[in-house]
Amino acid sequence: MPARPVNLKTTPIISFDLQEFLGRQTEAVNRALDRFLPTEGTRPATIHKAMRYSLFAGGKRMRPALCVAAAAACGGSERNALPLACAIECIHTYSLVHDDLPAMDNDDYRRGKLTNHKVFGEGIAVLAGDALLTQAFEIAAQCKGWPCYPHRRLTLEIARASGSLQLIAGQVADLEAEGKQISAKHLRYIHERKTSALLCCAVRLGGMSANCSPGRLKALTDFGYHVGLAFQVIDDILDVTQTSERLGKTAGKDTQAKKATYPSIVGLDASRRIAEELTRKAFAALKVFRGKAVALEALAEFLLKRDR
Amino acid sequence: MPARPVNLKTTPIISFDLQEFLGRQTEAVNRALDRFLPTEGTRPATIHKAMRYSLFAGGKRMRPALCVAAAAACGGSERNALPLACAIECIHTYSLVHDDLPAMDNDDYRRGKLTNHKVFGEGIAVLAGDALLTQAFEIAAQCKGWPCYPHRRLTLEIARASGSLQLIAGQVADLEAEGKQISAKHLRYIHERKTSALLCCAVRLGGMSANCSPGRLKALTDFGYHVGLAFQVIDDILDVTQTSERLGKTAGKDTQAKKATYPSIVGLDASRRIAEELTRKAFAALKVFRGKAVALEALAEFLLKRDR
Repeated sequence: MPARPVNLKTTPIISFDLQEFLGRQTEAVNRALDRFLPTEGTRPATIHKAMRYSLFAGGKRMRPALCVAAAAACGGSERNALPLACAIECIHTYSLVHDDLPAMDNDDYRRGKLTNHKVFGEGIAVLAGDALLTQAFEIAAQCKGWPCYPHRRLTLEIARASGSLQLIAGQVADLEAEGKQISAKHLRYIHERKTSALLCCAVRLGGMSANCSPGRLKALTDFGYHVGLAFQVIDDILDVTQTSERLGKTAGKDTQAKKATYPSIVGLDASRRIAEELTRKAFAALKVFRGKAVALEALAEFLLKRDR
Repeated sequence: MPARPVNLKTTPIISFDLQEFLGRQTEAVNRALDRFLPTEGTRPATIHKAMRYSLFAGGKRMRPALCVAAAAACGGSERNALPLACAIECIHTYSLVHDDLPAMDNDDYRRGKLTNHKVFGEGIAVLAGDALLTQAFEIAAQCKGWPCYPHRRLTLEIARASGSLQLIAGQVADLEAEGKQISAKHLRYIHERKTSALLCCAVRLGGMSANCSPGRLKALTDFGYHVGLAFQVIDDILDVTQTSERLGKTAGKDTQAKKATYPSIVGLDASRRIAEELTRKAFAALKVFRGKAVALEALAEFLLKRDR
């Protein structure tokens, strides 16, 4: 893979205030999620406490932000994208809750807080994950759909990205690769499914919520795929280079669990170059938006340069 | 509750061949599920093997049969009801796979076969359940919907019946009631959610697939609610009175786990009377169909009199 550095200077990011955008989006998503979910006191209280515990544990809301940013690139509104953005965040959270279980990655901390099963027990953690996954489809059903993308198409989009051929396939392959020597190609297969699929879905749903053209949907798919892969490569790098405190989860966990990662297969420097190259490709996909995808560009750069 | 015996003689069941209907439905549902699910060899093979292991473990396909029977009562077709019937069966199966986990009911056998986690391990069993739940929504998306019941309405119906206020609420309450003295009222709360909600949903979806009138949907809801409750009371009774061999799962499990059941709270005889009374109410709800709900009637009688 070529090591050409990303020339981010050619993109009109400077005028875009990403921190302001992220702050506003996080607040909007949190408010919407709070409205969509049963209150903590709703019977049975345990499950709603457990669902909310993980959903409001300080997640970065990157997928919702990507969804709304994609909608904006296509001339759509935050209002139309928000239920879909919230649905994706519920799916993302459910996958973390189940992934942290003792039978899976067996993690005690996530985002600097005890994991769901450490607080509520394994049984409730399994059910809280199930409930968040189910809730995602209930929330998505708030959208009636749009001329080119009826509600049925949105359900299919979410179900496929999170199903046994994508998100869950990634978790399975990840589980099965533990302690084994795997090729860079196989690692990419895992990352494509475990991370890229849902990020890509978030971006696509944003476009759909703006009733975008097939051409733009293709561009968004391309963007989402590459940003998603870059995101996971960076995650692998941070696991090696950062402290647990900074990450809010156990650092060095991948090495400890003998998990194959980009740094363990191709080394740290090559991993950084791969992440840059993937981000460059993500930027290239946005050309069709002729400078109107500023939020997506800023997010891609932010995800590349993040340190946690 | 009055102990009036059910007078099944007044209903025109005699002319209906339930065994033939069940045989045909089971075959149709199995074929459709086989078509909807990725093949066993699809990568990653483990998850598709695990999903299919539990989905084709010899379930009685009662929910799909109720769904198709409700469609028939409303003048609808099997063809239109089938994807929804399959979606409900996926949800039912996922709930069993997760319910059997060590962190939940910790069961080794189900339908006479080893439970999913005993064969594939806990991690894969959690993921297989997740995948079946997700698959349900993908399958339901095969239905475009009908004039009175657009696809969005179907998604909502399924998500609500299986969400944290219904099916999952039942599992949570069941988990929390273990080893505790609970009232008959609380037990009914659990049964309504753990069993009745999804059965009722199956019946309602059948009606919706036939684009039924609001009045008929109400009647089906009434029927589904009472049949669902009767179903669980009978389950409780069978757990006490039948052998493990006959049930295909560990008998006496409820007593062993100190689970409250109808027999443990009101005794065996009263439990039988309650099941009969509930079935009588289910029958009463079908009056509006003026004899066209023969399959539903036959199913309700069958469920009451079953011995496993």
